[in-house]
Amino acid sequence: MTTNLRIVPVLLFGTLISCQPSVDLDAERAALLQADQEWAAAATEGSDVDRIVSFWSDDAKVYPPGAPVVDGKQAIREFVATSMEVPGFSVGWEPVQVVVAPSGDFGYTICRNHFTVPDADGNLVTTHGRAIAVWRKAADGTWKCVIDIWNNEPAAEEGAE
Amino acid sequence: MTTNLRIVPVLLFGTLISCQPSVDLDAERAALLQADQEWAAAATEGSDVDRIVSFWSDDAKVYPPGAPVVDGKQAIREFVATSMEVPGFSVGWEPVQVVVAPSGDFGYTICRNHFTVPDADGNLVTTHGRAIAVWRKAADGTWKCVIDIWNNEPAAEEGAE
Repeated sequence: MTTNLRIVPVLLFGTLISCQPSVDLDAERAALLQADQEWAAAATEGSDVDRIVSFWSDDAKVYPPGAPVVDGKQAIREFVATSMEVPGFSVGWEPVQVVVAPSGDFGYTICRNHFTVPDADGNLVTTHGRAIAVWRKAADGTWKCVIDIWNNEPAAEEGAE
Repeated sequence: MTTNLRIVPVLLFGTLISCQPSVDLDAERAALLQADQEWAAAATEGSDVDRIVSFWSDDAKVYPPGAPVVDGKQAIREFVATSMEVPGFSVGWEPVQVVVAPSGDFGYTICRNHFTVPDADGNLVTTHGRAIAVWRKAADGTWKCVIDIWNNEPAAEEGAE
């Protein structure tokens, strides 16, 4: 019986360990911020469509203001590729807030974004907005954007959050 | 020793139970959907500001298109109360999708919304949009909206998702 009793603490400890994966929220926030910043860098650089699209999940939905929902990665790839072909088009964003759920597998980012596109006369116009991205941690441990929506900030708010 | 050995399975079972809270995701989705629908009903009814505001968390942020971020419950209360005073104002939304994270404490809803406001000539104009609300489960078990953002759908998409 002595042998059996010795394994009891081991069993209990092992069970506790397996049930408390001790999510390192600071590390998850840092990883999510890094993913968002790498994504923004790729989008601003504007040539590697594969890399830009890789930050969305296969089932992601993008809601551009005043345009139809872009539903799923194939549609998003076409949306990105088409945007990149517009002469003078550019996009970028900077993080305002990064939030990770206590479970460490879900989160959202608040960003300030900007789009530059030609107007009807071909003059480039830059619009500033606020973007919310909802993120889900994938099975491989990487963060993927599942929801992407933004709208314009008021002209008076230019330069603010 | 016999007595001690008998409590081992109880300890192990108790540990497992406490570590696997067995989140009922269907129940959580139903609870989140119900909260969203009760919120929409209160907003459409349009008189009980306390009840409407109660669905946001204290630290919630609201991003109306083209307007400054409404940051925190006190600012949101003023935003709601001011909106309700606009002659002819009305708002409503219907759920398109309800998603709850595996941990059951975080989620988001996709809705189709509509706002009716008077234009410069006093004629009431209704705008349709797509809203994303990010939700967090509060300590008391209720779902609270922490992020609320929407934008307009294209005129051609009226009637669609």
